[in-house]
Amino acid sequence: MNPSHTLVKHDMNSQFFLDSANNCMLASSPIIRRQQFLIRSLCRYQNRNHMAETKPEDAIAADAEQFIRRITPSLDLNRHKGQAGKIAVIGGCREYTGAPYFAAISALKIGADLSHVFCTKDAGTVIKSYSPELIVHPVLEESYSVRDDEKVSVFRTVIAEVAKWMERFDCIVVGPGLGRDPFLLLYTVNLQGFRFLTFSLQDTVREIMKLARASSVPLVIDGDGLFLVTNNLDLVRGYPLAVLTPNVNEYKRLIQNVLDCEVNDQEAVQQLLSLARRIDGPTILRKGKGDLISDGDTFVLVNNDGSPRRCGGQGDILSGSVAVFSAWARQQASALNEDPSNSVQSPMVLGCMAGAVLLRKAAALAFANKKRATLTTDIIECLGISLEKICPASSGQT
Amino acid sequence: MNPSHTLVKHDMNSQFFLDSANNCMLASSPIIRRQQFLIRSLCRYQNRNHMAETKPEDAIAADAEQFIRRITPSLDLNRHKGQAGKIAVIGGCREYTGAPYFAAISALKIGADLSHVFCTKDAGTVIKSYSPELIVHPVLEESYSVRDDEKVSVFRTVIAEVAKWMERFDCIVVGPGLGRDPFLLLYTVNLQGFRFLTFSLQDTVREIMKLARASSVPLVIDGDGLFLVTNNLDLVRGYPLAVLTPNVNEYKRLIQNVLDCEVNDQEAVQQLLSLARRIDGPTILRKGKGDLISDGDTFVLVNNDGSPRRCGGQGDILSGSVAVFSAWARQQASALNEDPSNSVQSPMVLGCMAGAVLLRKAAALAFANKKRATLTTDIIECLGISLEKICPASSGQT
Repeated sequence: MNPSHTLVKHDMNSQFFLDSANNCMLASSPIIRRQQFLIRSLCRYQNRNHMAETKPEDAIAADAEQFIRRITPSLDLNRHKGQAGKIAVIGGCREYTGAPYFAAISALKIGADLSHVFCTKDAGTVIKSYSPELIVHPVLEESYSVRDDEKVSVFRTVIAEVAKWMERFDCIVVGPGLGRDPFLLLYTVNLQGFRFLTFSLQDTVREIMKLARASSVPLVIDGDGLFLVTNNLDLVRGYPLAVLTPNVNEYKRLIQNVLDCEVNDQEAVQQLLSLARRIDGPTILRKGKGDLISDGDTFVLVNNDGSPRRCGGQGDILSGSVAVFSAWARQQASALNEDPSNSVQSPMVLGCMAGAVLLRKAAALAFANKKRATLTTDIIECLGISLEKICPASSGQT
Repeated sequence: MNPSHTLVKHDMNSQFFLDSANNCMLASSPIIRRQQFLIRSLCRYQNRNHMAETKPEDAIAADAEQFIRRITPSLDLNRHKGQAGKIAVIGGCREYTGAPYFAAISALKIGADLSHVFCTKDAGTVIKSYSPELIVHPVLEESYSVRDDEKVSVFRTVIAEVAKWMERFDCIVVGPGLGRDPFLLLYTVNLQGFRFLTFSLQDTVREIMKLARASSVPLVIDGDGLFLVTNNLDLVRGYPLAVLTPNVNEYKRLIQNVLDCEVNDQEAVQQLLSLARRIDGPTILRKGKGDLISDGDTFVLVNNDGSPRRCGGQGDILSGSVAVFSAWARQQASALNEDPSNSVQSPMVLGCMAGAVLLRKAAALAFANKKRATLTTDIIECLGISLEKICPASSGQT
């Protein structure tokens, strides 16, 4: 399907935001209105390098479920294991084992063929026990488990372990349950004497991100991965295959670090666009009551019904989902030889839209059943049926 | 809702106890009678410092489900993760791993956003494996796992680990599955020679309780936490944000230690009031056929239908539930700027009432389904639907 068929364009500006929503809603039938969510792509700037001159040029209101149908691969008996996606999650430490599990199992539930987790040794046993479906590599190390004189060799070993897998992945999620383990390494650099180096689990992950980028493997960065990236923006600057998925507090830190100001919800769209442009490449998915997505060119709001429960772990579902959908969108763009400069078709933006829409749909369904007792595992159990409602497996099966 | 609307006051005395119950039951319609439980707040003393002069002044018969509706926050799409409560459980050792899990998962099932467990290393792996929803910190140490020469540094490390999280929590449950690990530490104090110090897991927990109190974080103390507190009453004396939840034997030890006498069920109300006054601040929830609650000012009996099964772990559900409800009651009192000296509105008393009512309702439902095979996990699975019957999620959703 040509994506232009799914888009309705309007002339508009930022003040037209709510009117646009209403207009778009009115343009749909009541039934569709209830079932579908609304995406409002309000501001598409052509001239991203000259902010002062940029104006909202056009707006796109679309049925995001059509995007999901477009990027979700048909189920084809001729395909073999791995072709529907191989996802890796880097995260899981002494405290956090649920988060990487949620991300990795969500990727499988949506339709990825293989889902790997790279975590610390102590986390590995636990994450494996959650599900035999995951491939868990307990290769990361935390300070408490490594002797000082072993740290250099451990660092090199870990990087080598991960590096040999790197190019096999269609997307890597960095951060769920990563933790912020700080440890100091003292070692002899040269004949002049000793030198202190900060060497931590996050340093290891930084190296992994560099490896991924060198291999053009997409990155979805969440949780403590965002803490790392916010303090090391060069890790993602200029890399269009990265997605950052900040929550309220993480977004606040990003805005403070990158734009040197506070979050301004009155100018949410402009500020997100400015942030994305300043980082120059990555797509940002700002999680909230409505999920705001921008790569600096396109702005999208996803606000279909979700759950009012704010139990921990929903962000991990989202990161795993975005990884799968963006991998699929990228595969499809490559197969169709689409113009990568058309940011409406950016696989990372499409992946964010699809992931956000599906999470909300699954969360709404879980909440309808479990009400206040809704937990993240309940939402994960609704991913399959929610995707099936949007994109029936039988329709694509050949 | 103004709480005065939910209260009916009577002049009465202790001998009026059963008559009052019957009167209240008669005042309700048969349908309401079946669905609702009765709270009889029989004795509310105004003058807590002069026991000899205190007389039952009034009594309050109320529909406790209205209290639950009042303190349970509405589900609001504008809220973000953490605002509906962050609970921590301190407990879990080599022998006991179920208890802290029951407390922590119950908090989530009722509606808290995040639930942490601080336990020993060996317990951590197991508790994590019960559920990916919990954040488990395996930072506590037991004697068998620590070398003598490491004990001081281990003690300091553990305290520092917990302290950095302390202020984030809305309530801390101390005791489920804590155990009573005793170990002796021998170390050189100064040039005068050696000194023996008792240093145990419970010493660590004592320090954690002091930290919580210094940060005005509410404490719910159960199980082996009560063993600790009974022998160290200053830990909670004068602290109105503490709740003690003794069972039959724990209550007996408390009465013996604090009032220097035996439990007298003929004077149960007076004795509980005396105990609460002597401890001066904490609310006491005496578990039994009927749950008796008092902070020394107010007395409440909760005796709605529960389950006749006495399988282990129900007390842990209660402690986790009281933690959530008292955190919510405290948030609400703070938002409404209520007078904290009005003990009818004490968040800890309200939390105890709500927790006790909900546990009984969930236990009755589980028992109706599972009969003699009813276990604690069955009751936990009924927490959500039981709360939904009292306080429909949709009614509060905005």
